[in-house]
Parts: sequence; structure tokens; C-alpha cells
Amino acid sequence: MAIVMGDNQYGKAEIRLLRVTRTGDVHEIRELCVSTTLSGDFEAAHVRGDNSAVLPTDSQRNAVYAFAAEAPVGEIEDFGLRLARHFMAAAPAVRRARVQVDEGSWTRIVSGGEGHPHAFVRGGTERRQALVVAGLDRAHVAAGLSDMVLLKSGGSEFRGFARDRYTTLEETDDRILATAVTARWRFSSLDVDWAASFAATRQAILTTFACEHSPSLQQTLHDMGRAVLEARPEIAEIRFSLPNRHHLAVDLAPFGLAGAGSVFQIADRPYGLIEGTVRRDEAPEGPALDW
Amino acid sequence: MAIVMGDNQYGKAEIRLLRVTRTGDVHEIRELCVSTTLSGDFEAAHVRGDNSAVLPTDSQRNAVYAFAAEAPVGEIEDFGLRLARHFMAAAPAVRRARVQVDEGSWTRIVSGGEGHPHAFVRGGTERRQALVVAGLDRAHVAAGLSDMVLLKSGGSEFRGFARDRYTTLEETDDRILATAVTARWRFSSLDVDWAASFAATRQAILTTFACEHSPSLQQTLHDMGRAVLEARPEIAEIRFSLPNRHHLAVDLAPFGLAGAGSVFQIADRPYGLIEGTVRRDEAPEGPALDW
Amino acid sequence: MAIVMGDNQYGKAEIRLLRVTRTGDVHEIRELCVSTTLSGDFEAAHVRGDNSAVLPTDSQRNAVYAFAAEAPVGEIEDFGLRLARHFMAAAPAVRRARVQVDEGSWTRIVSGGEGHPHAFVRGGTERRQALVVAGLDRAHVAAGLSDMVLLKSGGSEFRGFARDRYTTLEETDDRILATAVTARWRFSSLDVDWAASFAATRQAILTTFACEHSPSLQQTLHDMGRAVLEARPEIAEIRFSLPNRHHLAVDLAPFGLAGAGSVFQIADRPYGLIEGTVRRDEAPEGPALDW
Amino acid sequence: MAIVMGDNQYGKAEIRLLRVTRTGDVHEIRELCVSTTLSGDFEAAHVRGDNSAVLPTDSQRNAVYAFAAEAPVGEIEDFGLRLARHFMAAAPAVRRARVQVDEGSWTRIVSGGEGHPHAFVRGGTERRQALVVAGLDRAHVAAGLSDMVLLKSGGSEFRGFARDRYTTLEETDDRILATAVTARWRFSSLDVDWAASFAATRQAILTTFACEHSPSLQQTLHDMGRAVLEARPEIAEIRFSLPNRHHLAVDLAPFGLAGAGSVFQIADRPYGLIEGTVRRDEAPEGPALDW
Repeated sequence: MAIVMGDNQYGKAEIRLLRVTRTGDVHEIRELCVSTTLSGDFEAAHVRGDNSAVLPTDSQRNAVYAFAAEAPVGEIEDFGLRLARHFMAAAPAVRRARVQVDEGSWTRIVSGGEGHPHAFVRGGTERRQALVVAGLDRAHVAAGLSDMVLLKSGGSEFRGFARDRYTTLEETDDRILATAVTARWRFSSLDVDWAASFAATRQAILTTFACEHSPSLQQTLHDMGRAVLEARPEIAEIRFSLPNRHHLAVDLAPFGLAGAGSVFQIADRPYGLIEGTVRRDEAPEGPALDW
Repeated sequence: MAIVMGDNQYGKAEIRLLRVTRTGDVHEIRELCVSTTLSGDFEAAHVRGDNSAVLPTDSQRNAVYAFAAEAPVGEIEDFGLRLARHFMAAAPAVRRARVQVDEGSWTRIVSGGEGHPHAFVRGGTERRQALVVAGLDRAHVAAGLSDMVLLKSGGSEFRGFARDRYTTLEETDDRILATAVTARWRFSSLDVDWAASFAATRQAILTTFACEHSPSLQQTLHDMGRAVLEARPEIAEIRFSLPNRHHLAVDLAPFGLAGAGSVFQIADRPYGLIEGTVRRDEAPEGPALDW
Repeated sequence: MAIVMGDNQYGKAEIRLLRVTRTGDVHEIRELCVSTTLSGDFEAAHVRGDNSAVLPTDSQRNAVYAFAAEAPVGEIEDFGLRLARHFMAAAPAVRRARVQVDEGSWTRIVSGGEGHPHAFVRGGTERRQALVVAGLDRAHVAAGLSDMVLLKSGGSEFRGFARDRYTTLEETDDRILATAVTARWRFSSLDVDWAASFAATRQAILTTFACEHSPSLQQTLHDMGRAVLEARPEIAEIRFSLPNRHHLAVDLAPFGLAGAGSVFQIADRPYGLIEGTVRRDEAPEGPALDW
Repeated sequence: MAIVMGDNQYGKAEIRLLRVTRTGDVHEIRELCVSTTLSGDFEAAHVRGDNSAVLPTDSQRNAVYAFAAEAPVGEIEDFGLRLARHFMAAAPAVRRARVQVDEGSWTRIVSGGEGHPHAFVRGGTERRQALVVAGLDRAHVAAGLSDMVLLKSGGSEFRGFARDRYTTLEETDDRILATAVTARWRFSSLDVDWAASFAATRQAILTTFACEHSPSLQQTLHDMGRAVLEARPEIAEIRFSLPNRHHLAVDLAPFGLAGAGSVFQIADRPYGLIEGTVRRDEAPEGPALDW
């Protein structure tokens, strides 16, 4: 049996950059973290030490900087598309180029009721994401967000579950539900108003988390996905990865405080992890979303 | 020469809790991370294996939970004071109790224009802090914040600095200035409107960072401290720790883009670190702020 | 077009435990981090709030503790197999159970030339891993390691690569090559001496990294994979994820030290990322290794 | 009351470098992380925007690289001394220069029974440290280590402690004791065989942790410090910071496994934190060790 190279890819990870655009005295900033990945016919580099097909990861980084400079970044989905198409053209061996763009949020510092023209304070940990996968014939785009931390102190229960000999968990009709949402959704078209689509998708996730009763984090995952697909026809499927950040009610009885207010210990590990995709049943195939 | 115990302290670090307060259907949440530290006459525990003076760190954790339950948390400075005074009374060997309280920010999820009664989304990485150091006769309070990430793309320069044989840095009259502010300020009184004081102090830091021209991060540190002290008579001194998060202009000339927009590489390490205290020259002494 | 649930899975992540086995005065310790993932027929939980098929993640955690207690852990591949088969039996809805086991290394503290019977010091960051994926008919096992950090200061070059308009990298016939190896390899059988196989595979990776000339990290990846497959017939394929931890030569000329010793700046981000699989060309299919 | 600058300092943090020394075909590598801090008369920079006394942190970084190049690094205590004295001389405003050097451990990859001349695998997370504080008249040196993770599964108890109304902890005469040692020790002289002193100090800590019965982590701290001071006359005092990494016995009774082997849950937070100094009672004063 011969030994051969299987799937392989290479690229530059976590290219962090700031783009400043000046319009008179008013500056706009964009803070991006870009990762590039190329795959294709790179057998010679792996097996024979022949690098002639290998576009260095250093050049990939330079291209990211140059593309950020030569025109406004625009929506990150478009920026990713421009880069992915560039990489497809840059080296003939490339069969697939994957570009991930993460954006951090910044808001103007407000002083005296007005936003400052060139001073900013960073928003939360939440990051908006775009993923572009370009092949020889077409490109796919997904959008997403990570580290959107949500918590509801009402409207969450977990009951009627299966039991085995190791089950000690008690049923509850009132628990804290907390998670850090990572979500990615794939578009069935490239003709999308990316900014409007992102804002509406994010809001649908927030509203559903808040307003729908949760019999389990699984049901909440499904409900959030369904709400997104119902609201946004341009989205073919959406995948969630939802850690269940356990909040354990502290037993106050030993301190004579049984009737006191509610206090919960916030646990680190282990944590539940609920993952799943909600999709349209006739949606065309696309790249896997569990990157 | 005899071998003796020197300074020592012990406690429970990073007690994370969530307090939920329900007023009808409307919930309020507080997310705290508390660390306790006791010092005093603990020679016997160190030298003779006699634990009779040692209040376990487990009991310190329980007290934090119980205090959070038995009454509303209120302002974290007051919560820390209640805890510190409890620890002073809980064990006779204790000569000093130090309680640090960090609070994370959460905002109501907005849906249909209204804040949801019991669903929340976490704010940024920024955390509000209180530090209480209680001794036998009196207690000191400091407030603070950490991880407030600021950036200005104008109004910052660095020129006229000293040079030695290892200096290659070029002068600049236009650079990105970015930092993650950690600040702690000590009060000369305990009769303070903690919430109002915190809000005004935070705003003074933001406004000064944005509006004052920066010839160096050192000057910006001083200006922010001065602005706080001028605005808030209850504050005796303020200490800043300011990493200089270097943003390096990308050389676009090799790509024929010399006249293009501004792109900066965001560096991780090494980073500059500027630290300093601004104080009133007759302020009474207090515990060191460089914890 | 209807909206449906796609792929989904759930489980408990990062169940950390210590197992102590006492044989007279001599203790053996095992430090494990286990993650469990179940998938199958969980439609009702997602769509109708019916949890009757859902074995709680809390029960999964308990099972991990119980299995660690009721018998010696043994090799982590066997431990994972026992757990995965348990989960397949524990809930009828489960169609696939995935168990990942990471083990940390500890060595006895040596004092007076002898290993202490019950005191230990932790080894490096490197962790040994096992992954078991059990289905209705059979189970697959993979082994692996993570965070094995390697560096060679000779025998590494990068030349003859492709160029585009963004290429500024210079060719080099002498560079630092440094990486943190993550590797996972799949077995074509379950009848394996896991410990011997792991030790020999790890050594083959080390020896190849050290002794084979590196024209690129891609070639090194291939060479390490080939060496493993040549040495270990029980392994069907091996996948590597290799960050290229760039070490940049410091330009000493401005300090008049052009002829001095070699000093390199260690960069954090961005970094190259080389990933690929080396396999036998007729190896039977198995679960993807890029988990 | 006037507003004035208080204590302040500035420098470059986490300058990471690799130094390669070639002796024929055999290479030696040193991996360092250096942080520099200067303090002195920098009032003008803070208050008047006058940077003429400020040696840039960029120059400090360059000096670290240059000093690593122009001569072998040698022991990190000596390297830190050379750097600190340079900074005292480099800028007249400097009154105190502080240099911290951390070193990572690497070992040669062994193949065929022999260490490879230029290929290395990284050791553990443990790092050796040196701290030099130079003033106008003299310099102080401390050494240290961080992240040495220790665990003993026997010979540890915690009994007879104080109780208050929040105490629920049960006494135990058999518990897991685990910690990550951070230790720093100050020398009363600069005429020290640094390598021998470090090795013997580290071994004294290990041996004492292993062999001395532990009635509390406090007593273990003291015993380790005493052992170091008894063994090493050149050390004036030693300070430890010891997190108590709680290992909680899993209750196996619900699974009918009460007589089974011992399994412990490894907790993340909160954790106990025990800190203290052991010193000679007539040791001359020196810089604080709780950096």
C-alpha cells in the first residue's frame, strides 16, 4: 500500500490590521483579523521539496494589507470575496481559497454629547465574521458572529429528560440559561445587502433568545435558527455552537438564609456544549459550517 | 541569624457569582468576581501546624455568597466594605482584610424597542472594580476599571526623545495611540456617591484621552489623572497602568500603493508599558494602588 | 421550502479529573480531561421541547467520573472505548458517541535519587490524546498529541517559491523552523498496543523533525507522516496541524554588531499554518481527523 | 492642594527572543522573555510634553537584542545585571532600572540515543526568572521560578481550623494538595554561582513539598522557604505565591461505587491563594519581592 498526501491546506492565520480612513477631520477605523487558507495542487512541495507552486504565506499577508489599503474595506463579506478571488488568480496551483475576516467593534468616544472625530472606545468581545470559500467556478459566503454572551434569568427550564444509572440531575422549571453564541450562516446568493442582513440576523437571534420560552438549550438553538431563516430568505442554513455556561444555585440553608435572594455560582468547567444546524430542506449544498 | 515568617496573606480568589433580584416580572442581575485576602497573626499556622486561627478560604467564599444573598448587592464599594468588616470581625487573628470586587456589565436585550424584563447581553470586556482594605481602626476604599480599550487615530505624536546608540526609532507627529486602561483611584473619604463618582471619573478619562493632544503616553496618563482629580474632590490619587499597543504603519511602497489609505499592523509583543500615579500633594497616605 | 434541523450533537466538554490509585504506600495518578458528544435522533428535543430522549450532559459527566472510579483507567484509548460504548447503550436515541480524552503528564518528584511514592511534578504542555467515535456497528479510534513545541536552528530553508506582485519575502537557506505539533492518527484496527504505538509514533515525529532536512514546513509535515506510517502498520492515516512560529532575524547592523551572534525576534501573530494528512492509499474510510 | 505626579515608571514588556550559539555543528539555544522598566526624573515628560529625558521603549528593546547578540547570554542574572547597568548609564534621568528575564527550557531531541546538534523540544511550562533592580549606588538581584505545578496525593491534611457562621468545610486528614509554585528569592550578595544556586533552590522546594507532611498549604509554604534558607546562605529571603488548586472528591455513592477508587474533580475557580515571605531576621532590606 503506497503512502500518499491526503487533504492539505496552508495559509496565514490572524493577520491583524487597522484601517484608518480620513474624511477631513473625521476618521473612520476598521479593526480586522484575517486568516487565509489555500489548497490545491501542492503535492510537489510536500513530497519533492519543490516550492515553485507555493505562494508564501508572507505574500498572502502582504496582499491582505494591500487590499485593505487600496480601497475602502467595505463590508467584510465583500472584502473576503475580493481577497479570495485574488488568491485564486495569484497562483495556478490553487483550487480553493478560503478567507476568514473577523471584525472588532469600536464606537466613538462621546464628549459633550458628540462623538469625537478620531477617538474611539472598543465595544464588547463580540466579533462579526465573514467566511468566503472560493473555488474554480464559484464562491460561497457565510457570515457569523462569535462571543455574543447571553443570559436569561427567567423562562428557562429543563425537565422530562432521559435517565440512566448515572443520572442525579434534578428537574427544574426555573434555571439560569447562559451561553456565548457562536453562529455562522451560509448565503444561497452573493447578491445580498450584507450589513442589513447581519443586523437583522443578529437581532433575530437576540429577540428569540429573550422572548421564546426555553425547555432546553437545544430547543433555543432551533428556535433561534428558525427565526433567522424565517426572517432572512437569503440565508440557506445557520449553525450554532452554544456552550451551556452553568450557573449553580448556592445552597443558602447552612447560613440560615433559605428565603433570601438568589445567588448562583458561575462554573467554568465542565460545561455543556450544544451544536446544531438549522436549514432549509432544499437548500443547495455548500461548504461545511463547522469550521 | 534566625529564619522567620515575613509578610503573609491568604484568601479565596475569583469567587464568581450572579445575583438575581426579582421585582415582579422584572429581574435585575449583577455579575461579580470577588477575591478576599486576610493577613494578621498567622504565625502558628505557618510554623507549628496550628490552624486554630485560620478561617478557611472556603468560609470566606461562603460569606461572599451569603452577603450577596441576604441583601441587595448595592454599589460594589459598599458590598466590599460590608465584607471586609465582616472578615475583620470573623477571626480575631485578622489584622487586615482586603476585598476586591469586579463587576461585569450586562444590558437588557432590546426587542421591539423595549428592554426585556429578564434577558440580557453582556457588555464589553471593561470591568468596574472596587478595592477595600480594612484595618483595625479604619477602612480605605479604592475604585477602578480595567480593560477599557481606547484608540485615537489623530492628535498623537512622539518627538524630541532621548537617544542612545541603540535608538533607531523615528520621530513622528502622527501616530496611532492605543491602550487598554487599567486605573485605580483612592478616596479620601467613605462618604461618597460611588455610582456618580465612578461615572464621572470614567467620563473624565474618556474625554481627556479623546480631546487632549498627546505628545506621549506619559503626558496622556498625567492629563487623564489631572482631569479626574480636578473633577472629583473625593479622590486623593489615581494610578494608571497603560500598555502601549503598538500599531505599525505597513510599508505599502513595494506594492505600488504609496499614496493609498493608511493600514497598520497591530503588534502583540513586545509592548510599551507606562505606569504612574497622579495625586494631590497633601493627600493622606493610604494603601498602595499598584495591586 | 421547509425549515428543518440538520446535523446536531451535544455533550459535556472538558470534564477534568484526577484518578489516584494506591498500591500500599505508592500512588499512581492520572490527570484526564474528557469531552463527550452524542448525536442521533434528537429532533423532538429541538423542535417540540420533548427532552425524553436527551440523556443530560450532567449524566455524561457522572458516567466519566464513575468509569474512572470503578476500574483502573488503563490506556486512554481503552478508557474512551468503554465510555463511548456505554453512551451508545445508555440512550436509544444515540447513533454516534464521540469521546475525547486528553492526558497530562506527571512525573514523580525525585529526592535523594529516588522517586517519591506520592508527590509529583507536572511535565510539559504536551498532552496525549485519544478520540473514539462509536457508531451502531463499530468504533473507530484515533490517537494524538498536542502542543509538542519543536524548534530546529539548522537544516531548514525556504527557497524557489512562487511570487506575485505582493511577494517581498527573501529566499533563505538557513532559517529557524519552529512549530507546535498537533497530530492525530487513525488506526485501522482496535487490536493495538496503545502505549507502545503512541511512544513509537511520537518518537518517529521527533526523529524526523530533527534529522530530515526541511525545504519547507510542508515537506517536513509529509516526512513526519511518512515516517510514522512506515514505522507503524496499525496506523491508517495521520493528520498534522503545524503553526509556523516565525523567528525573525534581528537586524544588528544599526548597532554595529553585524558580525555578532544570531538573535531572533519571536513573533506572535500572524503565523503561518500548515495542515495536511498523510495516508495509505487504500486505507479504509474513517471519521475525519480535522476535529 | 496641588496636583502632582507620584511614582511612575515605563519600559518595554515581554521582549521575546531566541539566541543561537553555534560551535561547529552543535548549536545551543536560549529562549528569553525580557521586560525593562525605568523610573527617575521624568516629570517633564508627564507634565510639559518634554520628551528629552525619555529613552524610548523601542531603544530599550533594541538594547536587549544587542546585548543578547554581542556576547553569550550566560546566566540570566548576569544578563539582567548587564542590561540594568546599561540603562542606568543610557539616560541621565534614570534613577532605577528594573530588568526581568524569564527563560524557557528546551532539551535536545534524542534520536538513536544521542542528542541532536540543532533540534530541540520544549520543556514544561515552568520558567526560570531573574529580576535585577539597579539604583544609583548598587544593584539587587532576585531569582525565581513560575508555574512549577506540584501535586501530592498523600501526606496532606487540613484540620483544627477556625470556624464562623459561614463555615461548612469538613476537616480532612487526607486530601490532594496541588499548587503552581511562583517563587522569588533575593540574594544578599552578587557574588553567587547563579546556576548552582538556582538548581539547589529548586530542588529544596521540590524535596520539601514531597517529603514534609502538610497540615496546611501555609505550613508547606513556610517549610519550603525554611529549607531554601537553610540550604543556601546567599539567599536573604524568599517569597511564594501558591494557588490552592482544589481537587474535590467525587461522591460515588449515587452510582453504587462507594468502595471504588479515588476520583477527584479538578476545580478552576474560585481557588485559595496563599502568599508569604520567609526571611532571615537580620537580612538587609531590599526591593519588595511581590512584583
